[in-house]
Amino acid sequence: MHIAIPLFPHFTATDAVGPYEVLSRLPHASVQFVSTHGGPVTSDTGFLAIDTIALADAARPDIVVMPGGPAPTLPFGDARLLDWLRAADAHTTWTASVCTGSLVLGAAGLLSGVRSTSHWAELASLTRFGAIPVAERVVFDGKRVSGAGVSAGIDMALALAARIAGDDVAMAIQLGIEYDPQPPFDAGSPHKAPAHVLALVHAKRALRAAAAA
Amino acid sequence: MHIAIPLFPHFTATDAVGPYEVLSRLPHASVQFVSTHGGPVTSDTGFLAIDTIALADAARPDIVVMPGGPAPTLPFGDARLLDWLRAADAHTTWTASVCTGSLVLGAAGLLSGVRSTSHWAELASLTRFGAIPVAERVVFDGKRVSGAGVSAGIDMALALAARIAGDDVAMAIQLGIEYDPQPPFDAGSPHKAPAHVLALVHAKRALRAAAAA
Repeated sequence: MHIAIPLFPHFTATDAVGPYEVLSRLPHASVQFVSTHGGPVTSDTGFLAIDTIALADAARPDIVVMPGGPAPTLPFGDARLLDWLRAADAHTTWTASVCTGSLVLGAAGLLSGVRSTSHWAELASLTRFGAIPVAERVVFDGKRVSGAGVSAGIDMALALAARIAGDDVAMAIQLGIEYDPQPPFDAGSPHKAPAHVLALVHAKRALRAAAAA
Repeated sequence: MHIAIPLFPHFTATDAVGPYEVLSRLPHASVQFVSTHGGPVTSDTGFLAIDTIALADAARPDIVVMPGGPAPTLPFGDARLLDWLRAADAHTTWTASVCTGSLVLGAAGLLSGVRSTSHWAELASLTRFGAIPVAERVVFDGKRVSGAGVSAGIDMALALAARIAGDDVAMAIQLGIEYDPQPPFDAGSPHKAPAHVLALVHAKRALRAAAAA
């Protein structure tokens, strides 16, 4: 079972590494981090780079997991990546995304009429690509599966692992990574965070969008 | 605020990347992934490599976050790494670990009499290093803080972020990474997982230990 995780400059690391951690533990799984040109690809903070192989050298994947990143830096203009995603999707058993990775799949034309989720702050952007936004943490629609923002990739991947290998294997993976979450705050969604914290996050996003414009 | 995350061959990726994702979002944070010799360091699955700089070239860290990996491959014999950890700890404001990373700090002599946690399956091993095992997800003891297995690094880092920058900043980071966990199963600790799933994980660990012996 070949799993490909495409990276691009400014990807969000946990979007990619969370699902990798879960799916790489499936029986007979192999994972390739891939990118348009190959070589190390640097994440959104500039502090972390993951080695990749070039798309041209990638095995044909059974599963694609597309991570996201900050909206201004998504690879909508990378025709080679979008072409590769379309070609890969023609043969996958599952095509998955995390966070704004769903917008990249959308830009590749893969989410027309497909129920999908994304990071809460970009959920409405899915309509630009004809997708149907669903405000849930994990959304399955046929062979397409999407997770919400960043950390949701772990939940998405566990749900996907259960579909692929059964509940016992998925639970064994969950136990192996001790995924018994105990966040110190209950502030992980815009419906739960205090209003002034939500305002902080919106302000930071506005600053980033302005800097990118 | 310089944060160093030491990597070693066969590290568990999420042990390192989970805390990185949280702490790199703190104001004025810079993160360096470091290793004994520098260059790409490959994780426990063999599928993921993160670029590092050599310990000799690392900035003096204010915070160290030591990730773990499978017990048979922990770098107990890497004297340069253990020396560097001791020297770094003399100047840190926080010395943190995730998963079996606490055993590495223990091997460096940094946990004598210190209350610490680790991956559930290796918690008792802390006594080899004079540490006091505590079966909690996040444990603070003075400037030392430890998280339990793998995914617990996210909870540990959010708790640490709150100590460093206040609750509002920590909650904004939590909201930014949409950390509103919804695991599909409640099997993330040995007290919650079904007995046959716990047996599966023990069997896999025994096989790995035998292969390493």
